[in-house]
Amino acid sequence: MGAGAWGSALAKLLADAGGEVRLWARRPELATEINTTRHNPDYLPGAALPAGITATPDPQEALSGVTTVLLAVPAQTMRSNLEQWNGLFAAGATLVSAAKGIELGTLMRMSQVIVDVTGVDSSQVAVISGPNLASEITAGQPAATVIACSDSGRAVAVQRMLNAGYFRPYTNADVIGTEIGGACKNVIALACGMAAGVGLGENTAAAIITRGLAEIMRLGMALGAKGATLAGLAGVGDLVATCTSPRSRNRTFGESLGRGATLESAMRARDGHVVEGVTSCESVLALASSYDVEMPLTEAVHRVCHKGLSVDQAMALLLGRSTKPE
Amino acid sequence: MGAGAWGSALAKLLADAGGEVRLWARRPELATEINTTRHNPDYLPGAALPAGITATPDPQEALSGVTTVLLAVPAQTMRSNLEQWNGLFAAGATLVSAAKGIELGTLMRMSQVIVDVTGVDSSQVAVISGPNLASEITAGQPAATVIACSDSGRAVAVQRMLNAGYFRPYTNADVIGTEIGGACKNVIALACGMAAGVGLGENTAAAIITRGLAEIMRLGMALGAKGATLAGLAGVGDLVATCTSPRSRNRTFGESLGRGATLESAMRARDGHVVEGVTSCESVLALASSYDVEMPLTEAVHRVCHKGLSVDQAMALLLGRSTKPE
Repeated sequence: MGAGAWGSALAKLLADAGGEVRLWARRPELATEINTTRHNPDYLPGAALPAGITATPDPQEALSGVTTVLLAVPAQTMRSNLEQWNGLFAAGATLVSAAKGIELGTLMRMSQVIVDVTGVDSSQVAVISGPNLASEITAGQPAATVIACSDSGRAVAVQRMLNAGYFRPYTNADVIGTEIGGACKNVIALACGMAAGVGLGENTAAAIITRGLAEIMRLGMALGAKGATLAGLAGVGDLVATCTSPRSRNRTFGESLGRGATLESAMRARDGHVVEGVTSCESVLALASSYDVEMPLTEAVHRVCHKGLSVDQAMALLLGRSTKPE
Repeated sequence: MGAGAWGSALAKLLADAGGEVRLWARRPELATEINTTRHNPDYLPGAALPAGITATPDPQEALSGVTTVLLAVPAQTMRSNLEQWNGLFAAGATLVSAAKGIELGTLMRMSQVIVDVTGVDSSQVAVISGPNLASEITAGQPAATVIACSDSGRAVAVQRMLNAGYFRPYTNADVIGTEIGGACKNVIALACGMAAGVGLGENTAAAIITRGLAEIMRLGMALGAKGATLAGLAGVGDLVATCTSPRSRNRTFGESLGRGATLESAMRARDGHVVEGVTSCESVLALASSYDVEMPLTEAVHRVCHKGLSVDQAMALLLGRSTKPE
């Protein structure tokens, strides 16, 4: 459900692994283009989509009789999409969240939003998360990911469906930990970009990634996640990819801010759009403070993006904290 | 003890934090050059060394009456150096290992080598490890590190000595975990380099770093380390810096191998020298197998470096493993 870059890449993985796939695209003309040209030029330029994929703009057609549904819509529109699709899911279907984020306002993780809207049992909800740049996956490059579900049988079923040879899904029972890494990483990538923008090097980047991981782990543990999950592909793996990739939107946006751009001018360079981290630092920080968890890097990013703190002031603030045990 | 890049950078940190430092240099002419020019052009080009540093080639002069000794010599020469210095250490002195590696043959960590040669109590031995490129630290860029010692009072004392404002040392009681990360990271950096050399991208790099961390954690836990230490600066932090930095020798060497160079031709490009990872994959793998720990990435690197396996064969081998829980 969703024919963006990630939704289309997931459809290709499922088809490459031998599955028969229905791909819902919001715009009818995109569904037609995928079915006739086998390409999705706006989101996955250059990638040939296998014959096993049938695109449709009709959610009922997409969902009818389907036992495994992958939800690949943006985090902040997950609720409204599900509300439109409610009643169309087959009884007992596995609903897999491929979205990363914390819902603004409710501060719910995506799996919670799914249970909240559809009323399915939480054992029917799985999440997929890991260092998975869609363009590299459709190029057939090796990648690994996590499939988390409290029902291990469902996790293994989704793992098998996505095992396309070049893609290695690992199962995990820890849904919370698998979701938290993906929801928090973009904020830390903004911080890494800011540091690079003011001219700081690899020691600083590694320290930001590691201390960022430490605060993500603190939040995760408070919510009931396992440390090992956050040390794994959906935690460390996704964080490292997002923080070090020159193609990471959040990192690049942070670099502009570090070089002295205002939030407004950095947004103008992206046609007025903010990157995910600018939005999610709000919901992550609100979630952390409701659990009384300290997240100094996330807070510094929040103050730079929303409270007018300069990047230099933010750096000085972080270095000025008292020394302590790790 | 040791006026290479890291020893000199540590001396500068100690002096910047207000300490009086004696710096032992093996070559008398280097000690003279440091004392007269305040520079160490071979190892730290461009960095001005503070007046608080006095260099000497005489270990007795360097060690006499000194209560904290930082040992910054290569891992595989730690034993022979200590044998020459034995008897010169002040009673009760804290001996801090700044070397990263597992001794070939004995499979000892550096702190074990120190206890083995000097006979001091293990509570007197500390280690320092983290993502600490010497050149960036001497440029005053922010960096963080771990000071580990079973005696927390000594850890805090070393932390204070090195707290130069731009450098944040965190204390930790887990000596084993702090040492294991530094000993294993270069092997994983070789694997990252190989993947980049055959043209693979960021998903693959992130998966190698994360699965490398997982096998380092397995080894660490078997030896008695804490998972949190390996998720920290001396584990994740140092691993990320070494695996992603274009200035990482091990990563660059792995890239040459990935592009098809033989071990011999890659070595010729480095004046006949191997990088640390080529040596340490031997001792790490021997240590892992003596504890019955599986390290598939380290084993693959070992087979490429020492058993004639091609990088392509190694990749196919790793992807062919059966899918499993994370």
